[in-house]
Amino acid sequence: MTEAILTHPRFISLEGGEGAGKSTAIASIRDVLLQRGHEVVLTREPGGTPLAEKIRALMLDNRQSLRGEGDEDEPLCAEAELLLAFAARAQHVRQVVRPALQRGAFVVSDRFTDSSYAYQGDGRGLDPAWIAALERRAVGLRPGLTLLLDLDVREGRARTSGRDLWPDRIESEQDDFFERVRAGFRRRAAAEPARFRVIDAALPPREVGLAVAAAVEQWLESPPR
Amino acid sequence: MTEAILTHPRFISLEGGEGAGKSTAIASIRDVLLQRGHEVVLTREPGGTPLAEKIRALMLDNRQSLRGEGDEDEPLCAEAELLLAFAARAQHVRQVVRPALQRGAFVVSDRFTDSSYAYQGDGRGLDPAWIAALERRAVGLRPGLTLLLDLDVREGRARTSGRDLWPDRIESEQDDFFERVRAGFRRRAAAEPARFRVIDAALPPREVGLAVAAAVEQWLESPPR
Ligand SMILES: Nc1ncnc2c1ncn2[C@@H]1O[C@H](COP(=O)(O)OP(=O)(O)OP(=O)(O)O)[C@@H](O)[C@H]1O
Ligand SMILES: Nc1ncnc2c1ncn2[C@@H]1O[C@H](COP(=O)(O)OP(=O)(O)OP(=O)(O)O)[C@@H](O)[C@H]1O
Ligand SMILES: [Mg+2]
Ligand SMILES: [Mg+2]
Repeated sequence: MTEAILTHPRFISLEGGEGAGKSTAIASIRDVLLQRGHEVVLTREPGGTPLAEKIRALMLDNRQSLRGEGDEDEPLCAEAELLLAFAARAQHVRQVVRPALQRGAFVVSDRFTDSSYAYQGDGRGLDPAWIAALERRAVGLRPGLTLLLDLDVREGRARTSGRDLWPDRIESEQDDFFERVRAGFRRRAAAEPARFRVIDAALPPREVGLAVAAAVEQWLESPPR
Repeated sequence: MTEAILTHPRFISLEGGEGAGKSTAIASIRDVLLQRGHEVVLTREPGGTPLAEKIRALMLDNRQSLRGEGDEDEPLCAEAELLLAFAARAQHVRQVVRPALQRGAFVVSDRFTDSSYAYQGDGRGLDPAWIAALERRAVGLRPGLTLLLDLDVREGRARTSGRDLWPDRIESEQDDFFERVRAGFRRRAAAEPARFRVIDAALPPREVGLAVAAAVEQWLESPPR
């Protein structure tokens, strides 16, 4: 009933809102780890395995692309969105994350369970106690270090506006949704200071990269856990 | 936290193992209800909406069809199987079942939540308390009447052997898996006698149809709930 959650020191996640710079910053983490001779597995969520990427496609598919024969939209309900996220994560953990950690590699994931708390919990209003139960039952693993790239919502959207000619289902949400997501991430970071480092993502890319690298270096030098 | 589960008198489910005759018997239920002038919605799980049918395809896809570029199999873990089943069910309930019940129709579903308890609980060994929590959180609705078509496992497989040139992922399981599923269904029926009617599915199709029709007629004539 009360499965324990393992916090693994070689598991690092990057979190933050749309366009905060997660996918850009992940290269800095990889470089720090490779320079020190570690094996590094870079991965992302939702997704990270062929099957989990298919689940991601169902989650993010915009309504238009779900039009059936009758040309009717089928909105994805919040509960199904959450369950699809955790189905994908269950596969990702078992197929990719755990095997890599077990052979001694570092795993760096662009998003992980904190995104479910922020997007489906704070954003969609689902009960965080339910999300916690899914985390225990289906995942059982937490990053030792989580870097939160914190950025003004409008600034993040401005950064991705050129890219997103066809925004996905979540990117199509309104600003108040993303404000709740941002507040949720910040609240979680404040509640778990030992795991989170909050990075000011408004800085230029080079400085964000340096801040991210410094946080990882400090983490590697901290006493063995 | 403790959402109530509504048991709806116009919601009827058919349950049973592979080849027990669910899809054959559903026509007898439809006929009884139509004869009495009711609107009837026939549906099935996993599936029942365009999106839920896509989730079904991911659940049942055989390993071979999940081969990625690297030609590697990706087995679906039990936890992801359960979460996909409930993601599909959450959609099905909100898009199809509840709207139909609300406008006064009867809904007859070929499989529903009892199949998750039997297949993912008894079959795969997942904790029934977790399944119960998912039922409360993501579904919140139970059939008033559930017809369990009970059949010897080998007999059911013999019936579908001609059809199943390419058995799906669950049909590819071994007999001991299906014995656990059958025992699970029977245990649930014994524990909830007010909801379940157990039908001897070894009888010829005509007699199964008559038994199913009689059970539904008796249900319709029982005191209003
Ligand atoms: N620190 C930065 N300052 C300005 N622009 C940046 C910065 N970091 C990244 N960008 C640019 O902003 C855009 C979004 O960056 P990126 O894709 O890394 O964000 P993300 O957090 O991964 O977004 P998503 O949530 O959509 O995956 C890219 O065009 C990127 O080049
Ligand atoms: N009572 C019966 N006696 C003998 N054969 C039957 C009976 N009912 C159905 N069949 C035949 O057995 C096969 C399986 O029946 P059916 O598809 O209705 O089962 P099912 O429970 O829906 O199976 P599945 O779990 O695969 O969906 C069909 O070929 C059908 O014609
Ligand atoms: Mg990104
Ligand atoms: Mg059938």
